[in-house]
This record gives sequence, structure tokens and C-alpha cells, in this order.
Amino acid sequence: MTDSKKRGKQSICFDNPPVIVGWASVAGKKESEGPLGRYFDITSDSALFSSENWEEAESKMQMSAVRRAIEKANVKKEDIDYIVAGDLLGQLMATSFGIKNLNIALFGVYGACSTMGESAALASMLIDGGFAKRTIALTSSHFATAEKEFRFPLGYGSQRPLSATTTVTGSGAIILSSRELAVENCDDKKQYVSITGITTGKIVDYGIKDPNNMGAAMAPAAYDLIKTHADDFNTDFSEYDRVITGDLGVVGRDILMNMLSSDRIDISKIYMDCGIEIYNSDKQDTHSGGSGCGCAAITLCGLVMDKLMKGIWKKVLFVPTGALMSTVSYHEGNSIPGIAHGIVLQSAL
Amino acid sequence: MTDSKKRGKQSICFDNPPVIVGWASVAGKKESEGPLGRYFDITSDSALFSSENWEEAESKMQMSAVRRAIEKANVKKEDIDYIVAGDLLGQLMATSFGIKNLNIALFGVYGACSTMGESAALASMLIDGGFAKRTIALTSSHFATAEKEFRFPLGYGSQRPLSATTTVTGSGAIILSSRELAVENCDDKKQYVSITGITTGKIVDYGIKDPNNMGAAMAPAAYDLIKTHADDFNTDFSEYDRVITGDLGVVGRDILMNMLSSDRIDISKIYMDCGIEIYNSDKQDTHSGGSGCGCAAITLCGLVMDKLMKGIWKKVLFVPTGALMSTVSYHEGNSIPGIAHGIVLQSAL
Repeated sequence: MTDSKKRGKQSICFDNPPVIVGWASVAGKKESEGPLGRYFDITSDSALFSSENWEEAESKMQMSAVRRAIEKANVKKEDIDYIVAGDLLGQLMATSFGIKNLNIALFGVYGACSTMGESAALASMLIDGGFAKRTIALTSSHFATAEKEFRFPLGYGSQRPLSATTTVTGSGAIILSSRELAVENCDDKKQYVSITGITTGKIVDYGIKDPNNMGAAMAPAAYDLIKTHADDFNTDFSEYDRVITGDLGVVGRDILMNMLSSDRIDISKIYMDCGIEIYNSDKQDTHSGGSGCGCAAITLCGLVMDKLMKGIWKKVLFVPTGALMSTVSYHEGNSIPGIAHGIVLQSAL
Repeated sequence: MTDSKKRGKQSICFDNPPVIVGWASVAGKKESEGPLGRYFDITSDSALFSSENWEEAESKMQMSAVRRAIEKANVKKEDIDYIVAGDLLGQLMATSFGIKNLNIALFGVYGACSTMGESAALASMLIDGGFAKRTIALTSSHFATAEKEFRFPLGYGSQRPLSATTTVTGSGAIILSSRELAVENCDDKKQYVSITGITTGKIVDYGIKDPNNMGAAMAPAAYDLIKTHADDFNTDFSEYDRVITGDLGVVGRDILMNMLSSDRIDISKIYMDCGIEIYNSDKQDTHSGGSGCGCAAITLCGLVMDKLMKGIWKKVLFVPTGALMSTVSYHEGNSIPGIAHGIVLQSAL
């Protein structure tokens, strides 16, 4: 193996960083009315997306995100070697039914709400490792499918505490390509965004048991990932324009900042959380913020790619965060372990 | 990228095939009493494995499999770079709680009962691609957790039709290492087993809707994988000692053989199905055979590794098969798409 790629135990600096040649976001009504609404490619006034049930709606969102990303990449689906995808539902049903007609080799993944980070990391490794020319990383979440899967059917009208987050209805897809091929397809030299490195998370469990406070459950995993990234790449984050977590919300953010400050890591000026950005919580009654795989995914494929493509941001550490729980684990009295997956996004001319 | 690795669209022939330096199987009572009983490393007379509930039992099985595999590989857990793992439960709960104390970077995967093939494929790519020196591929299933997750609580005492399979209580783990390191650790030259290639599956849906006939639902995916492997590696399987599917059972086997015969592919003399081998269905009342991620995993880590290490078999195509369904997808009237993941195992001196 080329030891040059490895940075510490959990990080990789790619020899041949894959380029993001296509990206697309599909978002629901509430998300389209939020502060990031104008960044989304496809939005719908109906949470059903013309489907018979919520699950089918989420599957349709995935397929729409893939189709639009393929269009924007100006490739054919036959040009894609692998798709790395997952979602929050039991047995990844949104993904299985969403992409079953794509006819592309699939690696199904589950990282709870960190799935966009996990799928992008693996999709990048497939290219840097010489296994593929083009790959897709894909994920989604849907407010109604997630409430049914993790909390209560919507019809119950349950009250939720202020520490609870709102699951984002959205799907994001990115198409990665070897740089060689990406440059070949460009008529003139223009800005592009690469994934230059990754830091892969471990399971971190601080014993939080409240499923209405997932920000607190995930904050230690985000802390562990960011601290490990700093160590592995020997950085104080001064060369980063943003460090972006997935869905810690306001409760999780404060815990994360506290934890980092004990290591004298101060990222407060460049810190952003997709869950906080995606809604206007005062006006939209979304409590602690947004969550779900789709939260990080559509913020990446919307706002983050926009800033990077315009060169406003040059280097971003993107850290989707996941809470590893199920209704069964909750009812059996278990804690909610967290995990986070980091990818480094860099824009270049 | 090194085009030399690619074989067709879905297959890879590794430049640096990782070596399986440790492997372990943990099995339940019924499995230990079946025809493969003597091959398993750890067995228990109690399906609870000294736990408070079935889910905890399944998690314990995963941890025991990893511990024993690490022991047999004669490495420390700190020597492992990544673990690629998953299970059948909603949100991968057996894995999350099983390995949370391992402190190893995790890629969570879901491929239903094909998970051992998916995790082994990714764990191999991490090594061949130069991202890791040692990786673990891990999965499990448990009869009682699977019945609760997919069918009915055990207490109902539901009757099942003869086409239904019995979920295997078992967990299998393999430790992969770069060949360089594996040879370094050997005192004398002895037999070893490598993963020399992979064929990654697509979702295949023939419209089967009966969750009590998952063999029929998965057979088309197994067919697609085996046919693709034959095309990608330009083989008639004459150099293979075995082609082994995961859990088609007797119903799925017959469908697979029929489908292959229409392409004039005859593997009947070298064909084996883990689901058929693992129980004595006449005496053990297991109907169409065994199923679950654990079925393929413990057969691999038991029988298959034994034959390969003894040089009785030299080359095996191992094809775990998965049925992509959940109780939600079933109740919404959906079909059961299948997927299969193939890995090529070769023994050498």
C-alpha cells in the first residue's frame, strides 16, 4: 500500500481526488420555504411528490436527485460504475425502491444521518483506489417516513419538546468522477470541486438516551471526528473556510463548541450546522433545527456546492452526524450512540 | 485509474489481493446441531447468549466473532484500520451495539442477507486501494430478532409454509490484511486464502411478493450476478471448485439452475447453497433451508475456509444473496427486489 495516503488511523488524503461533476438536491415544501430554498434544484408543494404513500415519495425523491445530477454532469447512467446509497428507513427501503431501475451496481450503506458523509467517502475511495471512473453518492430522508419509523404516526399529533429536531424532507446526490475524465469533459478551464480527503468516524457513546435530544447524542461523535481530523491532518483549521456539521441543531452545537474548547480548538468563526441553517426556526416552528440524512445532503448539494463553485469558499470540512438508534433499541432502554463521517471539499480553478 | 483492475462493468480483479488472516464463526444451538456444526468456533446452547434480550444476544455474537477472529489472526484490535459491518435489523442495531466498544472506524452497510459479500468486497477494496493495512468484514443474524423484525413475535407460534426459510442464528467475521503484512507474520510458508476479485450486484426485481418465498425473490439476483461474473471474467466456471450462494434454499436453487441453463451455464456439479447445507431439513424442520446474513457468514467462516485452507478447494465464487424488503414495504404491497454480492476466494501455498 501507498502509505502516503494515510493520515493517522482514520484519515485518507487522496492521491487522485475525485471531482464532483454533478450534484442535485430535491426538497420538500418546508425546506423550500426556508433560508436555503433558492439553492435547491427540485422542490414540491406536496410532501407526497405525487405518490401513494410517504415511502414511495421518498424513493421518488432519490430517483429525481439522481436523474438531475446525471443531467447536470452531462453523462449517461451507463457511464456510472457504482452507486453508494442509503437512508433512514428499516432495511433501506427508500433506496431499494428508489434506485432499483437504475441498473447500477449498488453498495447499500447505513450511517443514520451521517449517510451522505459515509456514501461520499466510499464513492471517493472507489475512484481514488482505481475501481471506478464514475460513482454516485446518494441519500434521503422524509419527515413523514421518519416520524413513522422512529416516533409516532403523524395522525397522533404528538407534541415534541424544544430539543427535538425536524426531519428534513429532501434527497441529495453527487456524481464523482476521476479528475482525468472530469477535465476531459470540460470545454474550458473552470472552477471545480474535489473531495481531497476523508476522516472516517467511530461509534461514540456518551450514554444519552433521549430520542428527542439527538443533537446531544451526536455532538460527542462530531467532536471526536473534528478532533481526529485536526490531529490526522495536523491542522488548526486556519486554512478552512467552513467546518459544517450535519444536524446537531442548536442544542448539539453548544455541546460541540464546549467540548472542542477543552482541547483549545476554536472553530466558532467558521462553524456551521446544516440543521440550524435549513430552517428559520422562529418562523417555521422547527424547534432545535433540521435533521435526517437529507438535511446534510441537500445543504451540501445546495448551499455548500454553490459557495465552493463560486470560489467564495475554498476548503470545507463537511461532517454529517448520525444517531444510531431504532425504536427497538429505545424501547429496550439502550443509549443512542453517535457516529460522524468527514469529507474535505476543495475548490480549484 | 489502473484499467487493469476492472473486468467489465461490475467486477474487479485485485492487483494486491488481500489475505484472510483471521476468521471466526459464532453459531446458535440449531446450527451447531446441523451438518456444519463441527466447523463453528463458538456455539451456545442458549439463543440468548447470556443476554437480556434477542437483540443484545445478536450484538454479543458479533463481538465474540470479532474477538475470536482477531485472536486467530494474532493481531491487536489497534492494528485494524476499518470495520465494514451490518445486519438485518432496522437501523443496523445488532452492529451498532455489538461493536461500539471496538473503537475502530466503521462503514455501516446493508445488503440484507448478502451483507457478508458486500462487507467483504468493500473491506477488500480498502486494502487493495491502499487505504488500509487490515480490515474486518462482519455480519450476523438471529432467528428471534429476525422473526420479530420481519414476521411475527415468536410467542404467536405462527405456522410457516414449506417455501419459507429459517433465519440462522450466527455471526461471522473475517480479518483481511495486505499480502505483504500477512506474509511477514507467517513463520513458515503455509496455505493461505485470498480474495482475488469481486463482482458487485445490482438490484434485480422479478416482482415476487411472498415474504415466505424469499428464495424465489433472490434467485434472479443470484442468476444475474453469476452470469455477469461469467461474462466479466470470461469463464465457464471450469476452474472453480465451488459456486456457493447464500440462502436460496431448495426453492431458489431450482429456479437459479433453470435460469442459468437458458444461458447454457451448467454449474450443477460445483454448486452449493449455504441455506441448504446448514441444516438437515428433514430432521430439523427447517423447511426450505437457512437464511439471514449469518447463514452465508458462518458457512464461509466455517466450512468454506476449512476446505480452502486444506487446499481441498482452490477457487470458490461465494455469492451471498439478499432480499430487499421490510414490513413496511410488504404491507404497502411492494415486491421483494433481490441483490447478490460475489467474492472470489482462492487458496495458495
